[in-house]
Amino acid sequence: MVSQIVPGGSRENESGSLPAQATVGDVAERILVERIMAVCTSAGPAHAPAVIIGPGDDAALVRADDGRTVVTTDIAIEGRHFRRDWSEAVDIGHRVAAANCADIAAMGAVPTSLVVALGLPESTEVAWVEQLMTGLVAEAAVAGASVVGGDVSAADCVIVSVSALGTLEGRDPVLRAGAAPGDVIAVAGRLGWAAAGLAVLSRGFRSPRALVDAHRRPQPPYAAGVEAARTGAHALMDVSDGLLIDAGRMARSSGVDIEIDSAALIVDEPIASAAAAYNLDPLQWILGGGDDHALLAAFAPDTLLPEPFVPIGHVVPAGDSEHPGEVRVDGGLPEVAGGFEHFRR
Amino acid sequence: MVSQIVPGGSRENESGSLPAQATVGDVAERILVERIMAVCTSAGPAHAPAVIIGPGDDAALVRADDGRTVVTTDIAIEGRHFRRDWSEAVDIGHRVAAANCADIAAMGAVPTSLVVALGLPESTEVAWVEQLMTGLVAEAAVAGASVVGGDVSAADCVIVSVSALGTLEGRDPVLRAGAAPGDVIAVAGRLGWAAAGLAVLSRGFRSPRALVDAHRRPQPPYAAGVEAARTGAHALMDVSDGLLIDAGRMARSSGVDIEIDSAALIVDEPIASAAAAYNLDPLQWILGGGDDHALLAAFAPDTLLPEPFVPIGHVVPAGDSEHPGEVRVDGGLPEVAGGFEHFRR
Repeated sequence: MVSQIVPGGSRENESGSLPAQATVGDVAERILVERIMAVCTSAGPAHAPAVIIGPGDDAALVRADDGRTVVTTDIAIEGRHFRRDWSEAVDIGHRVAAANCADIAAMGAVPTSLVVALGLPESTEVAWVEQLMTGLVAEAAVAGASVVGGDVSAADCVIVSVSALGTLEGRDPVLRAGAAPGDVIAVAGRLGWAAAGLAVLSRGFRSPRALVDAHRRPQPPYAAGVEAARTGAHALMDVSDGLLIDAGRMARSSGVDIEIDSAALIVDEPIASAAAAYNLDPLQWILGGGDDHALLAAFAPDTLLPEPFVPIGHVVPAGDSEHPGEVRVDGGLPEVAGGFEHFRR
Repeated sequence: MVSQIVPGGSRENESGSLPAQATVGDVAERILVERIMAVCTSAGPAHAPAVIIGPGDDAALVRADDGRTVVTTDIAIEGRHFRRDWSEAVDIGHRVAAANCADIAAMGAVPTSLVVALGLPESTEVAWVEQLMTGLVAEAAVAGASVVGGDVSAADCVIVSVSALGTLEGRDPVLRAGAAPGDVIAVAGRLGWAAAGLAVLSRGFRSPRALVDAHRRPQPPYAAGVEAARTGAHALMDVSDGLLIDAGRMARSSGVDIEIDSAALIVDEPIASAAAAYNLDPLQWILGGGDDHALLAAFAPDTLLPEPFVPIGHVVPAGDSEHPGEVRVDGGLPEVAGGFEHFRR
């Protein structure tokens, strides 16, 4: 009675094979969920040290050995965060998992597990969903985590909503609010690469490949978060909306201002080339571009910075103590179209 | 530099007052997030015993005293799970929080915290979002949990994606897979009320109010999950897609069949009246309707059922051991349009 029938009349194929072009509207929801779960569990239980109960029940159960769990959530919506003609499904999976795991790393924690809620148009191919999940599972594995559960729903566009859990392994969390005057501001990971890649794609190009790939599949420096925590970083966060906006958030939370030295911002060769080709200042991408998920930290001035952090500036007392949070570059207020606003019209 | 400007030219109002009709497209993202966070923290820290670090940083930090965390996710999409003309924002918030907290209860656990990812059209009024969050926070509080973080994005329709964490307080989780022949099948909470309410709304009516309210704001029996676990329930899950489908899932997971006695299914007065008015069999709603988030459990036959569980059937060996999971009502296979399929076309 409750065994499910494929709309169109053919009973679900017990062998698990589907036509190559089968869409989520062609198959019973249970079949889609089984396909997704097969991807989640393909790496095997040995891959998931934190997982006690994985996908398939009402909820999952994950180890939290030090008696605390770090939790964050990040949603990606087709047409707003990604385009299916600009990114492969596997890349979109990598990207959304990376955004979540970077938030865990930005607390000084290690990701343990992800849950994934998908909204899918009925016309989405099941194989596309499997590739999306493959990317999510693979990026989670890079960060040390597993996909332990999820939800699926029909939708008018693809929605990938992920929540990630992590463990501090007994350490204190590193918040945004601890930056103090005199601290060194340092960055681990790329700045501006994803924004440059998006600019390339927006102009109809597919190269330089390194930049396009950086947009499609960011490479957050997950381990640097733990290293920053071990080194006693005063403040830590990930750069998701652009260096200027995110440094401003750290400064405001900490009640300070931040001075950035533009000479310390490395203009990598692909960014320099693309900026020259488009007659742009590469600092527009480096200061204003998000989505690389670099880690931004404030360290005490005498700290030997852990790899791969590089110093880019320092913390100063707030010029206006009523309104801290100013970020100055080379002493001035940069005129960049800095950072991503979701609702700007 | 990084202080944000309201599109349209007026600087954000530091006093926090906004025009009554202000939309999320009218205000800086930071203002929207501050408004949402104000709702999340309005209940105060005393309200949130599990919360170590709440909203505002890259991630939240939540207690997991027994060294484990239960985690689940559930997404609701406008036009698929709710309509803004059929439900108030506060009700939608209650409903999505309830769906998540019921999944935690269905493991025998107690909800501790929720993270909330929102997709919002630019035209959504900020006040509507505040009401949505008010409902989420209030329902989480009913279940014992707090909203500890979130994400916002622009979208073409309202998307509410929630993940919930919970604690087993040292108990074993109660899975779907433990039902054994001879067990009593029991239900705590309502069956069919939300489906009847949806049928009322679909016909253009707003009453009986009790049914409409049941659709808008389900009342899962959260505490019954813990009681079932303490009483040694063999299997436990929540009824989210309809009794027949969900009992089938429990039976299939457990390798058994389930017999339901329709005489044990209480036809509450509002359902009886509405069914009579529409010339329908009320069992269609009771067997096939989801969204009430009742809890379905299998108990050993000699168990004194904890309140408010009532027996509705029993577990039998699978008639076809290759394909367990059949659910029979009064010995037969009921002809109901049972359960919700997300992708059925």
